[in-house]
Amino acid sequence: MPRPSEPILSPDKIAQAALELIDSIGEFTIGAVARRLSVRPSSLYNHVGGREEIISLVRDSLIPETIPPFRELPWEQGLSDGIRLYRAILSDHPAVVPLLATVPLASAASARMYEEFAATMHNAGFPDEQILDAITAIDNFALGSALDMAAPPTLWTSPHWQARMRAVTEAAPRGRERADQSFEFGLRVLIDGLRARLPQQ
Amino acid sequence: MPRPSEPILSPDKIAQAALELIDSIGEFTIGAVARRLSVRPSSLYNHVGGREEIISLVRDSLIPETIPPFRELPWEQGLSDGIRLYRAILSDHPAVVPLLATVPLASAASARMYEEFAATMHNAGFPDEQILDAITAIDNFALGSALDMAAPPTLWTSPHWQARMRAVTEAAPRGRERADQSFEFGLRVLIDGLRARLPQQ
Repeated sequence: MPRPSEPILSPDKIAQAALELIDSIGEFTIGAVARRLSVRPSSLYNHVGGREEIISLVRDSLIPETIPPFRELPWEQGLSDGIRLYRAILSDHPAVVPLLATVPLASAASARMYEEFAATMHNAGFPDEQILDAITAIDNFALGSALDMAAPPTLWTSPHWQARMRAVTEAAPRGRERADQSFEFGLRVLIDGLRARLPQQ
Repeated sequence: MPRPSEPILSPDKIAQAALELIDSIGEFTIGAVARRLSVRPSSLYNHVGGREEIISLVRDSLIPETIPPFRELPWEQGLSDGIRLYRAILSDHPAVVPLLATVPLASAASARMYEEFAATMHNAGFPDEQILDAITAIDNFALGSALDMAAPPTLWTSPHWQARMRAVTEAAPRGRERADQSFEFGLRVLIDGLRARLPQQ
C-alpha cells in the first residue's frame, strides 16, 4: 500500500474503527483496530493511551456536540427528554453498552451530558448526596433499555412459560413496539419513583 | 491426547466452557468453545443447536434450581427480594449481561424466575397488559445494575466535571459501596414508581 499523502491516524479515526468493530463483532482489540487502519499497533499509541481511552473516545463520538439545556424545563420533562436522548444515542450501538460501563466517564462530552442531568435534579430539589444515586438509576435504566431495543422480536417467547407469563406475553405487543412501550412505561415509573423521594418542599 | 474414557461433551460442559470464555475475554465463539474442550466444532452440534442455545444454557446455569417463592410475600418485599437475587446472579458474570439481551428467554430456569415475578405483580393487582412492561423495567434495571457492579472504582471520575457533577461525585461513596447504595436507591425508586401506577383498589 502506498504511503498516504495525509496522516491516516487521528483519535477520531481510531474511535471510528473501534466502533465499527464493536458494531460488527461486539468487541475490539488494539490489534484489530490497527489492522483495520492498516497500521502497526504501536502506531496507535502515538494518538491514544490505550484501550480505555479508545472506549472513552467511542462514547464521545456518539454524544452530540450540543446537549439540549434540559435543566431549563420542568424537571420531569427535562429528565424524560434527557433519558430519551441518551437511549437514542445508545440504541444504534447496543454492543457498545457493556464497554461503557467498564471505563471512567472521563470524556468531555459525557461530562456535559451528566452536568445537564445533575443540574436538572438539583433544580428539582434533590440534595447532592442523592443525585449520583439517581443518575445511576437513570444510567442503568437507559443502558438496559438500549440493550432491550436490540433484542430479537422473539425475546419473550418460551415453550416453558407457565400460566401467568403465558397470559402477560400474549397481552403484550411484539418487537420494537414492545421495547418502546416498555421503555415509556419504565420511564414513567422512574419519574414517579423519583418524585416520591423528593424532599418535601 | 488419549481418547477419554467417558464422554467429555454435554450441554452443561459446553455452557461451562462458554461461560469461562465470556468471563475471561467477554465473548465466545463456537470455535473457541471447541478448542477449550479439545473437540472439533462439529462435535458441539451433536449436543447443542448453536450459539443462541449455548447462551440460553449459560443463563440456565446461573439461575438457581430453586427460586424462592417470593410471590407469597407482600409484593414490594417479594419484588425487592427477586430483583436482589437476579442482580446477585448476574453480578459475578457481568460480561454475560449483553449476551442475555440478545436471545429469547427460552430456558426453563428463566421461565421459572419470570413466572415468580409475574405472579408477584399479578397478586399485587397489576393488570396483565402492564406486567410485561413492569418486568422489562425490572429486567433493564437489574441488567444495568449488574454491569455497574463491575465498573471500576474510578467510574465517576473526570477532569471534565463541571460544578454540579463535582459536588455530587464528592458527596458519594466510592467503588462497591457506591454501586450497592445506588442499587438500593434505584430499587426504592422502582418500587415507589410501580406502586404509583397500581390501579386503585
